[in-house]
Amino acid sequence: MVEGRRFRVAGSGAYLPRDTVSASRLDDLTGQPPGTTQARFGVTRRHWACPDETSSVMGAAAARNALDEAGWDPGSLDVILGACGVMEQPIPGTSVLIQRHLGLGDSGIACFDINATCLSFLIALDRVLAGFALGDWQRALIVCADIASAALDFSDPEASVLFGDGAVAFALEAHGPHIRLSHLFRTYGEAADVCRLEAGGTRLRPHEDLDGFLAASRFQMNGREVFRATSRRFPEFLGDLLAASGIAPDDVDVIVPHQASAAALEHLKRSLPDGNARTIDVYADVGNQIATSLAFALHTARATGRLGPGDHALLIGSSAGISLGGAVIRW
Amino acid sequence: MVEGRRFRVAGSGAYLPRDTVSASRLDDLTGQPPGTTQARFGVTRRHWACPDETSSVMGAAAARNALDEAGWDPGSLDVILGACGVMEQPIPGTSVLIQRHLGLGDSGIACFDINATCLSFLIALDRVLAGFALGDWQRALIVCADIASAALDFSDPEASVLFGDGAVAFALEAHGPHIRLSHLFRTYGEAADVCRLEAGGTRLRPHEDLDGFLAASRFQMNGREVFRATSRRFPEFLGDLLAASGIAPDDVDVIVPHQASAAALEHLKRSLPDGNARTIDVYADVGNQIATSLAFALHTARATGRLGPGDHALLIGSSAGISLGGAVIRW
Repeated sequence: MVEGRRFRVAGSGAYLPRDTVSASRLDDLTGQPPGTTQARFGVTRRHWACPDETSSVMGAAAARNALDEAGWDPGSLDVILGACGVMEQPIPGTSVLIQRHLGLGDSGIACFDINATCLSFLIALDRVLAGFALGDWQRALIVCADIASAALDFSDPEASVLFGDGAVAFALEAHGPHIRLSHLFRTYGEAADVCRLEAGGTRLRPHEDLDGFLAASRFQMNGREVFRATSRRFPEFLGDLLAASGIAPDDVDVIVPHQASAAALEHLKRSLPDGNARTIDVYADVGNQIATSLAFALHTARATGRLGPGDHALLIGSSAGISLGGAVIRW
Repeated sequence: MVEGRRFRVAGSGAYLPRDTVSASRLDDLTGQPPGTTQARFGVTRRHWACPDETSSVMGAAAARNALDEAGWDPGSLDVILGACGVMEQPIPGTSVLIQRHLGLGDSGIACFDINATCLSFLIALDRVLAGFALGDWQRALIVCADIASAALDFSDPEASVLFGDGAVAFALEAHGPHIRLSHLFRTYGEAADVCRLEAGGTRLRPHEDLDGFLAASRFQMNGREVFRATSRRFPEFLGDLLAASGIAPDDVDVIVPHQASAAALEHLKRSLPDGNARTIDVYADVGNQIATSLAFALHTARATGRLGPGDHALLIGSSAGISLGGAVIRW
């Protein structure tokens, strides 16, 4: 018998940058023959943030939508968690900047950030639900916001056309009808180099080695190695996650994946019964939004009426690390 | 009656970079008359990391010391949390790199990072204790590692000579004799600009505006405004934290502060009975190590025998945000 953790999504909201880039423009940027981005990578278009659409600006816009749906006074929040793949700036964190954008700069509402690259939302949700279970918090806001387009290397189509920008926020409260039946997260640091963005922290210093810094300031991915490192662990991971939830693969109503890539989504769909029909797939238009991606898929499932009372949602994905993460929620 | 959360420190460890910089060398670097760094800022020396002493290398060294004291097989950990002020690199996170350095790269042990700038350790501890209370984890490793010297602006002595580098790790387990009686954390994003490091995230892009990026790639602090924003909130914060713990100011045996600055430490010592004698002050030799600082002070309190069974430790500090944070632990 699985006990689970109760909560309620009181509201969710998304923000997509106003500018879009077409697949044919991505063909040009990456030097591929016309049609390649669409045919080979399954991309229709991408939303890319303009300079005024910072991570915190987009995150605050998504948060306002979530709070509006919840009908909450923003000041009633107990905590604001930033769950981004990459922060807007190192100090202070994105959650603090979002608090200020929401007009809560003198509220004292606790703000901090959780990072597990593409699976930050899953970890943030896990720690929020722990806080709910213990009575630490009654109302929490999780905000994901990412600007992948800030660091793309167009000389590598596979590592660049995948990504899009955007933000999603969830207004969550303790108790309520949803029950998270299981949560599982496993990290394999041996594959830390197959998916990386090295410049922007304490190790590479632009004032000491500018060329080295600039060379490492774009996202690098070895797609083949990512797939290999992830796929060989995936069957056992999925089995353990479902076993911990007490439900069978057939009982999964909605698959809510991180939108890693078209190939990863296809692989996932083949791993579960009726996977094609059950999977939330926004990859063609929205892409891999780093940490925002899984949250965007969950928001989409809600907004499109795919999640009804009693339905089982399987949240699942992989991230740089590499890590595998997932949760089963009875809605 | 305060219930509190139980845990045990099974081991703790620190790592300080092998190279030190004297106060007189800091006078030279910052263009101050000889003796100023020592006399005005209370600095004896600073440890600065060499290129081979990355955040994760230092963090792993501290972690080995903590695990050795605990006598644990590293593979028995349930989770590794990075609690740094600034990450080693954006993707993947510092916790993952530490996992790999510890030879745990194929272990699957969950790794993620928590960021609340200088108070990351306090938030990481809070979320670990929540995980312990719910049975999510039995053994956790929190690792703080920071290299402030990577981004100092020596044209501003006040914002540069304060800082030192280093790492600290805590091996923690569920149950045990220590009880955290209270935890409090408040964020005021209205002061987000008084203490900041802007370059290194999604907003400033070196490939689009290199000069702007480089100009923002050193830590900036308005010391007067930091003090003003923090000190006016501090008395109420301290009162609320102690009230939540159920102990009186006189009952605090050991004050374990973030080593923000000599001035901040003096202010804190004056705020509590017998503050001078009760405060762990390693500022002169070690300095403000960003998120590592509070953890370093707690490790020092343990290592020097300042914490005996039943003693009350007050962990307290402020961070960029700005945030105020604290916890009361009955040892």
